[in-house]
Amino acid sequence: MPRPKAAATLDDVARKAGVSTATVSRCLNAPERVVKATREKVMSAVRDLDYTPNFAARVMAAKRSFTIGAIIPTMDNAIFARGLQAFQEELHAHGYTMLVSSSAYRPEAEEEQIRTLLARGADGLLLIGHDRETAVYDYLERQMKPVVAAWSYRADGRIPSVGFDNRTSMRALAEEVIKLGHRNIAMISGISQGNDRARLRIDGLRDAMRAHGLDADALPLIETRYEIESGSEAFSELMSAPQRPSAVLCGNDVLAVGALLAARRMGLRVPQDVSVTGFDDIELAQIAQPALTTVHVPHREMGRRAALALIEMIESEGKGTSVNLPTFIEMRDSLGPSPSR
Amino acid sequence: MPRPKAAATLDDVARKAGVSTATVSRCLNAPERVVKATREKVMSAVRDLDYTPNFAARVMAAKRSFTIGAIIPTMDNAIFARGLQAFQEELHAHGYTMLVSSSAYRPEAEEEQIRTLLARGADGLLLIGHDRETAVYDYLERQMKPVVAAWSYRADGRIPSVGFDNRTSMRALAEEVIKLGHRNIAMISGISQGNDRARLRIDGLRDAMRAHGLDADALPLIETRYEIESGSEAFSELMSAPQRPSAVLCGNDVLAVGALLAARRMGLRVPQDVSVTGFDDIELAQIAQPALTTVHVPHREMGRRAALALIEMIESEGKGTSVNLPTFIEMRDSLGPSPSR
Repeated sequence: MPRPKAAATLDDVARKAGVSTATVSRCLNAPERVVKATREKVMSAVRDLDYTPNFAARVMAAKRSFTIGAIIPTMDNAIFARGLQAFQEELHAHGYTMLVSSSAYRPEAEEEQIRTLLARGADGLLLIGHDRETAVYDYLERQMKPVVAAWSYRADGRIPSVGFDNRTSMRALAEEVIKLGHRNIAMISGISQGNDRARLRIDGLRDAMRAHGLDADALPLIETRYEIESGSEAFSELMSAPQRPSAVLCGNDVLAVGALLAARRMGLRVPQDVSVTGFDDIELAQIAQPALTTVHVPHREMGRRAALALIEMIESEGKGTSVNLPTFIEMRDSLGPSPSR
Repeated sequence: MPRPKAAATLDDVARKAGVSTATVSRCLNAPERVVKATREKVMSAVRDLDYTPNFAARVMAAKRSFTIGAIIPTMDNAIFARGLQAFQEELHAHGYTMLVSSSAYRPEAEEEQIRTLLARGADGLLLIGHDRETAVYDYLERQMKPVVAAWSYRADGRIPSVGFDNRTSMRALAEEVIKLGHRNIAMISGISQGNDRARLRIDGLRDAMRAHGLDADALPLIETRYEIESGSEAFSELMSAPQRPSAVLCGNDVLAVGALLAARRMGLRVPQDVSVTGFDDIELAQIAQPALTTVHVPHREMGRRAALALIEMIESEGKGTSVNLPTFIEMRDSLGPSPSR
């Protein structure tokens, strides 16, 4: 294979396009900030000279890698896919690229990936939730890199959060269920170990039960993986109890859809024989039959705001401001009055 | 804020754990390759010494960044979310981290991101499909970095592909539709401009029509964004034609679900009044009512094999082998015999 010819420099491109080197940099990294005519002049010079930016030089000049790491449980989940897409779009608009690692909901995998992404020179990190060892927070502080937690708001967290209140959101949904006369309530939750979002939703349901004189400790509860089949199995198990629940609250829409499928297989009508609710309001919630009553979470807005928070922390070297995004209950057909009314 | 203390080196960790520096490296980058007892000894030393790997040193030693870039149209799409998760898991098992950029289906954005990710030192790139300017392929060749295209198999492409045959897959599905007596067939497709997967699926349907004496040029065809609402609008438009189709073939399951929702709103029964088919076999296909007849594409396997192909090209400096993965038709309730039979 032939050797590559001597590479064109940033100066060469700037000279050819008749602009400053700063303008050339901006065209390549934050093109939305450059007037179209200028951008076209520069890109034309870039192509003619076959210019590939010397990333190392820019990194040294800015003392920044313009790369931000995101560690999420999995990409194969509508809420993270949606939120991460918005996160990456905002990063890109500001000239940053995203490194992604997934931890499969395992805290030890998250810790290893935090070290790895920082070793790769990430300027900042996006993490999910607040469940991690104190030692990991201590390590992050010593690295002096901006870190933001998303999907879970916590006023007193070690790091800023861009999230929402999982506990009060689920409580509000449970209140609607209780208002419709349901007394025998059951829950299908995600695995709460290492997952504060799942745990806080269980707490929220119990808060609502206590507020209405129901025995929160007697709550029939199954924790399982966020998968449709797991939701189906859990639902069948709950409905085989001597005292059948009249409402099954699910930790997310995926579990709720699993519950709906199981109900259909068992010949149970939703909501006439049993009500089912979800959490998140992903597209599936509207397509399911019946459509799911659920908590609407603004995933895209959260991803976008998390990106802005990180960029601000990196560029202003500030501490970062937490954001608590509002959620609301989306009332649809899967929740109806208790059959015993 | 206090200054960080003098950093521990790779040697320090190796000495403390009583292993070689190569073993320490492997523990941090490909832990699945290390015996558990050794891994625990090393991680214990890593934590005690507060070691953060000197990534720059490793990069210089290996002349590799251990980072692979992926440029996809969007993460907010079940097929890419699923495939990319499998891709990233395989990369991680081999000690690589993934950089992700999304191009929103725009070729000019893809070109800019190719330059950016290579500038950031990516060892290789994953791209989607084969539609891009010759100049971009020329540039990639001059950079001498491994590149693989996925989601679309092409025996004669400029770069190796890990994909499947979009054209024959859609043809096979269309054959099933025609076998059931349908003569008035319509199609809702994704935007074919810059998207070879969408274009080849249209071609495949036309191939089947011609093979059965149907007028392929007269195919009612609407191209629209891969969104549920877009699918609904396109379906309503197609069904308002004087000669209503008896079967509407959709370019993917998202459009097909949109078609089902529109049919329901219009009081049309599927499949009794009109049949609907999709493509991909995402989870939505099984949950929809009626369940979708579609083409099953092995997205996770494709992501995994694409990662292996790139790693092999990087580590063996070989040309890379293309892989054509088989698809199959998943027959469900949304496709039935033509009403006019």
